[in-house]
Amino acid sequence: MTQATLPTDAPATRAQSAPPTRRHVLDLDDFSRDEIVEILETTASMKEVLGRPIKQVPALRGKTVVNMFFEDSTRTRISFELAARALSANVVGMTGKGSSVEKGESMIDTVRTLQALGADILVIRHRESGTPYLVSQHFRGSVLNAGDGRHAHPTQALLDMFTIHERLGRLEGLNVVIAGDILHSRVARSNLWGLATMGAKVTLCAPPTLLGPTAYWTATWPNLAISHNLDDCVDGADVIMTLRLQKERQESGLLPSLREYSRLFGVNAARVARAAPHCLVMHPGPMNEGVEIMPDVATSAQSVIEAQVTNGVAVRMALLYRLAEA
Amino acid sequence: MTQATLPTDAPATRAQSAPPTRRHVLDLDDFSRDEIVEILETTASMKEVLGRPIKQVPALRGKTVVNMFFEDSTRTRISFELAARALSANVVGMTGKGSSVEKGESMIDTVRTLQALGADILVIRHRESGTPYLVSQHFRGSVLNAGDGRHAHPTQALLDMFTIHERLGRLEGLNVVIAGDILHSRVARSNLWGLATMGAKVTLCAPPTLLGPTAYWTATWPNLAISHNLDDCVDGADVIMTLRLQKERQESGLLPSLREYSRLFGVNAARVARAAPHCLVMHPGPMNEGVEIMPDVATSAQSVIEAQVTNGVAVRMALLYRLAEA
Amino acid sequence: MTQATLPTDAPATRAQSAPPTRRHVLDLDDFSRDEIVEILETTASMKEVLGRPIKQVPALRGKTVVNMFFEDSTRTRISFELAARALSANVVGMTGKGSSVEKGESMIDTVRTLQALGADILVIRHRESGTPYLVSQHFRGSVLNAGDGRHAHPTQALLDMFTIHERLGRLEGLNVVIAGDILHSRVARSNLWGLATMGAKVTLCAPPTLLGPTAYWTATWPNLAISHNLDDCVDGADVIMTLRLQKERQESGLLPSLREYSRLFGVNAARVARAAPHCLVMHPGPMNEGVEIMPDVATSAQSVIEAQVTNGVAVRMALLYRLAEA
Repeated sequence: MTQATLPTDAPATRAQSAPPTRRHVLDLDDFSRDEIVEILETTASMKEVLGRPIKQVPALRGKTVVNMFFEDSTRTRISFELAARALSANVVGMTGKGSSVEKGESMIDTVRTLQALGADILVIRHRESGTPYLVSQHFRGSVLNAGDGRHAHPTQALLDMFTIHERLGRLEGLNVVIAGDILHSRVARSNLWGLATMGAKVTLCAPPTLLGPTAYWTATWPNLAISHNLDDCVDGADVIMTLRLQKERQESGLLPSLREYSRLFGVNAARVARAAPHCLVMHPGPMNEGVEIMPDVATSAQSVIEAQVTNGVAVRMALLYRLAEA
Repeated sequence: MTQATLPTDAPATRAQSAPPTRRHVLDLDDFSRDEIVEILETTASMKEVLGRPIKQVPALRGKTVVNMFFEDSTRTRISFELAARALSANVVGMTGKGSSVEKGESMIDTVRTLQALGADILVIRHRESGTPYLVSQHFRGSVLNAGDGRHAHPTQALLDMFTIHERLGRLEGLNVVIAGDILHSRVARSNLWGLATMGAKVTLCAPPTLLGPTAYWTATWPNLAISHNLDDCVDGADVIMTLRLQKERQESGLLPSLREYSRLFGVNAARVARAAPHCLVMHPGPMNEGVEIMPDVATSAQSVIEAQVTNGVAVRMALLYRLAEA
Repeated sequence: MTQATLPTDAPATRAQSAPPTRRHVLDLDDFSRDEIVEILETTASMKEVLGRPIKQVPALRGKTVVNMFFEDSTRTRISFELAARALSANVVGMTGKGSSVEKGESMIDTVRTLQALGADILVIRHRESGTPYLVSQHFRGSVLNAGDGRHAHPTQALLDMFTIHERLGRLEGLNVVIAGDILHSRVARSNLWGLATMGAKVTLCAPPTLLGPTAYWTATWPNLAISHNLDDCVDGADVIMTLRLQKERQESGLLPSLREYSRLFGVNAARVARAAPHCLVMHPGPMNEGVEIMPDVATSAQSVIEAQVTNGVAVRMALLYRLAEA
């Protein structure tokens, strides 16, 4: 953690009444500023654990975490696996392929089975938005959303916020540009909830076809700015967060061409130069280098992309730890 | 374990001469009543371990268990994985996909390789009946059958018997109805061996096309009843065990329609009401709710389906423990 | 280790200047005789660990090993997994299927991500020759090549050399015949480097279509013999190492027929009888029994195929241990 401390006394913009302990982490939409601050502080402690020669504490010894990854994801699966093991939990993996869900078993039946097998925490990634909610309604332990459809990716947003705060010392009042395929991005949605709650000023920047329900965005977050011009947005920005472009979008007619997209919305050195000198460049990965981000920017001193990955393990430890306490 | 004790002095119906320690668990056909009683008692001890805050004992520390799952099965694979870890064994997973068996290596060569790698116990599930027998002939350690083709599923039958005994205090003399797709069911076969050995009265209930070799059934188990009418069978039953219907059967012409099957052989509330008031409803999972069992029955107070799953971990611990001692 | 000691004072044929500690193991081409001797001695110590009731030492406690298997391999994956766990490392598995690499993420980005997640050692198998080199250039920890394309398989060659030395007490001056599909074999290439460095006399024996660049072989290893006649080669041989025949080769027109191949290049009892009485028969597995090796030979007293597998775990422990020290 940097010298600057998180503003624990700041007024919450939303969900002030969130309980001190929660049973599930499904999205950030009901997290108060206080709760986010607490999580970021716990993350700092966990990061200290990861810096030790033996990166392990016995906090979750005797607990069983099931990693349910119905959608491919190496980095997030391994991140959760390392986080759970660093807390001494018993981790069991499960993928869509080869599972009973393929045999036609309902997700609810699967969850009841995992319950009966002794699972304490379910970490779930699924291509259908809402699946973690469904799962949480049928599981007596805790559910942690590791990304569902276009809906939410709360651990990504928390690791993004932790990384920004670690580098810039604060979140409140920062100019954060989120650029790229907003329409399909659960990362953008969860960051919007979290950053708005923490008082950052967010600008969404995308081609109109990849922006999504503008009216909904601005009604939900009144301070949100929206733009189709990346050059304008990055002027003086504190953070540029660019999103993975699903190449399939092009076939769907939502994009003119990758080359055009890259020219208009790719984060390159010239654009970073227009931002504040301390501006951070972020990407949730995996990157399409040369499309939404240029290789030289991805590996520049202003890029915190590897720090995001490193901090992800600590954020997941913090959340698993808090859920196990609940 | 309930108050009632298992009848250790009862006469065995078969295989009285089974050795006190066995090296493999391939089916229940050569298990004596004494051995089954011992396993159920060890299971009760293991269930006590699973109730502790830290669900682990060092019994298999230093032993390597290989989970060979050539057929998809989330619940059984995870159950064995948790059981082996609860005994502090080193567990390694292996699936048919991505294994040398796909490269054309013979199963025998694979087994010799696992032997040479240091495996102590092989847990194997395979779609071909008899594979665990083949494997046991080429492995100097222990083999545990986790389900082979239509042949046997001894751990399922033992967890079913443990669950019945836990709830009803005995097995001898109970009226147990096994309903559904008997023809293709390894669960039914292993339960027949086990329940008959323990002195339960079993009725098989299925449409003629899904019943299999009736003459063989009745010649092998003289006290077996056979029926095509579920309403008749359930009258006064102590246990109704229904089996998963493979939906593929319909395409094969063995079934009229799922709707017809459900009407005639689905376990619903009206049928359960005809059974004894303490009657247990069981299913090995995964369920086709609305086909062989109605959702309200599956979640009713008489359903012990989740208890079956929970007890499965303890039964597998008991068997792994006994094999490691052999 | 047998009574005979390894000749630590022998002159190195190559790469005398290899550093005392190395960061990666990519191939044996830059290993000195001294370094190979040291590895074989460390392997003997590790084999002693594997003979204990609890096969575990805390040497790599706190280190994270990622097993990246982009090509199917049960035996090598499990061997590395058991080796890493025997050293108390934290082992995480990753396959090509389901990984970000399938989403189009570059291998370099994947490696940077694993770095950021906290990986200390990457074990990599890949169908493309050279991938471990690429990976090593972008990873600050250690990379261990578990087989890349036709290029190299250093752990296999080291376990082969350990097994030969364990049985015959020396490597120098031994007549080693490597027979079969040399052209496509990374096992042959790595053994050539290692055996030549250790002073063994190697004969390559293959049909012309499966031999590869003869001129290159003989220019690189001046003492190498080349033959197309297995009967001639095995006369007085100390070791016959036969290679897996990829059955796909036949379709490519490189082979007349499996039957013909088996007759001319299959290792059978008659051929073994022409070799030295103490001659060892080796195969890296998985075997095509009846093609490149006859079943009776594979299970004969002279076969050390299972010893190779057993020693593989110890060799991998030795390498992981040395890399972690670097």
